[in-house]
Amino acid sequence: MKKHIYIYSPSGAVRDKAAFRRGVARLKTLGHDVEIDEAALASHLRFAGDDETRLAAIHRAAASGADVALVSRGGYGLTRILSGINYKKVAKAIEKGTLFVGISDFTAFQSAVLARTGDVTWAGPALCEGFGVGGKTNQADGPAGGKEQVPDDIMEACFDDLISGQGEGAGWRQNRETHPTTTNSIATPAEDTGARAEFSIKNSTIWGGNLSVLVSLLGTPYFPMIKGGILFLEDVGEHPYRIERMLTQLLHAGVLARQKAIVLGQFTAFKLVPHDRGFKLQSVVNWLRQQLKVPVLTNLPYGHVATKVILPVGAKTDLVVEGRDALLFWGHL
Amino acid sequence: MKKHIYIYSPSGAVRDKAAFRRGVARLKTLGHDVEIDEAALASHLRFAGDDETRLAAIHRAAASGADVALVSRGGYGLTRILSGINYKKVAKAIEKGTLFVGISDFTAFQSAVLARTGDVTWAGPALCEGFGVGGKTNQADGPAGGKEQVPDDIMEACFDDLISGQGEGAGWRQNRETHPTTTNSIATPAEDTGARAEFSIKNSTIWGGNLSVLVSLLGTPYFPMIKGGILFLEDVGEHPYRIERMLTQLLHAGVLARQKAIVLGQFTAFKLVPHDRGFKLQSVVNWLRQQLKVPVLTNLPYGHVATKVILPVGAKTDLVVEGRDALLFWGHL
Repeated sequence: MKKHIYIYSPSGAVRDKAAFRRGVARLKTLGHDVEIDEAALASHLRFAGDDETRLAAIHRAAASGADVALVSRGGYGLTRILSGINYKKVAKAIEKGTLFVGISDFTAFQSAVLARTGDVTWAGPALCEGFGVGGKTNQADGPAGGKEQVPDDIMEACFDDLISGQGEGAGWRQNRETHPTTTNSIATPAEDTGARAEFSIKNSTIWGGNLSVLVSLLGTPYFPMIKGGILFLEDVGEHPYRIERMLTQLLHAGVLARQKAIVLGQFTAFKLVPHDRGFKLQSVVNWLRQQLKVPVLTNLPYGHVATKVILPVGAKTDLVVEGRDALLFWGHL
Repeated sequence: MKKHIYIYSPSGAVRDKAAFRRGVARLKTLGHDVEIDEAALASHLRFAGDDETRLAAIHRAAASGADVALVSRGGYGLTRILSGINYKKVAKAIEKGTLFVGISDFTAFQSAVLARTGDVTWAGPALCEGFGVGGKTNQADGPAGGKEQVPDDIMEACFDDLISGQGEGAGWRQNRETHPTTTNSIATPAEDTGARAEFSIKNSTIWGGNLSVLVSLLGTPYFPMIKGGILFLEDVGEHPYRIERMLTQLLHAGVLARQKAIVLGQFTAFKLVPHDRGFKLQSVVNWLRQQLKVPVLTNLPYGHVATKVILPVGAKTDLVVEGRDALLFWGHL
């Protein structure tokens, strides 16, 4: 289904222009009209243009009338311009049907939009890392091309579902060692073999995204005050102690206990050190579960990884858990 | 002046036992009675013992009746046990005259004590990095010993002033490129050569410490709600974009505008990358000054550096600025 996709850069400067071009080409190959914002490749210090340039790009994306406004990449740059965004313009665009899609630093935009307008945006790929992966096309297409060389099937299928209006849910299997039967809140029946723990949550607001970026909004007017929600989190390049410190902040701020479920996505590209002496990501998950009655799920395929689902930040969602299997379901929005 | 100094470990495990021993020896050489907490060298994962062990250590330090309760080191571990600290016990110890001294992760303790009790603690050295620096003593004492091999003179002089009750203030010279005449709020007289910018602030609460740790308390009951204060900040190993993101959080939370001055200490051990393209710490300082009418001072000798002053977190303090020269003065507490 041919769609109008608007590419813009609200965060870091695009340095990998080849990935940018590959991403645009891929979207065209998929049959879409791709419109590139005039400042999509701008560069000022580490940013995709100065603050005014990036704000103008966001507002052009909102005014574009596109079906999808897709960020070129993440990086850093949104938090410092949140007070300059015209949220009414963004809300109007969403009302008219523009789907705002992005990841990582884009969590700042998504959280601010949710906090200010209550509107839904989409946590999913960025152009470069999602559609622009791979090296030379002839290698990736040839028999020697590895899986890493083309955009991920699942991500693209989710994107197709989204733009065709068929995006209804996302299912996955949790990590074995972080099985929900080990949470405080879910009792395993004595006669059970240990493989089952069933519960469901209805009509809860799903929200979240990148943990570092989300936590960097805590205490500000851009942090969504969601009660009874499903909070999903991912991060990249953050040591487990930092992940724990951020989760502790959300815990002490009362944010976690106010949710109906915490869903941990992919936490990648960190490096343990000898000083850790066994402290690792699982230690953090275990500790978090000791502090909370709310179920903490794991292994959501979302984060700085190729295979990821697309999630409607701010939408009412159901969650069904049966043993290690989990399903988020938001139906037709 | 002989003092009773209690050494304990509320944060990370002590791995460098030689530095620990050197620190204890140094304090003894300075004439003090050094009492070592029974769990000072405990280790559990990356922590100095499990949560209960570290909480017990804090409470033993509070009950010790020591003149000074000095942390062995920073690291990570305090934020996750803040809800378990008996603040009344700590307040009682402070009332009886125990000076709680530490740095880095200890900012969590200091902020929580200030938020919960209003009491004063001291931002200063830790045992290992402050008094335990250096290699073999006979080398450091010999003619071949470098300056790096012995505890810093200024830090030790400040410590001596503190314990002898003579700690009254700290003066320093700001960075040239971050001269306060460049702030929004201070006009440079036209006839001036550019070297002068005078102002003073009276009777303001000084608070702060490690930026990452302080910001990790925002939105929680452990973040001090200080208005009209002097906020000092330092950090280590944080890229300027992260420093900016944290400052932006304080900005958007309204914390910075509520202060009378922001005093930046030493930000060290970060690494710029090619992607920065000129974005650096000074970019952050410049940006911050554009966002704020409050003066932003620089180069306070405090942080993860050898030469540092000792500051009374929570105490009423005066600040006098004349050109690049700045003076914090708190008199006898």
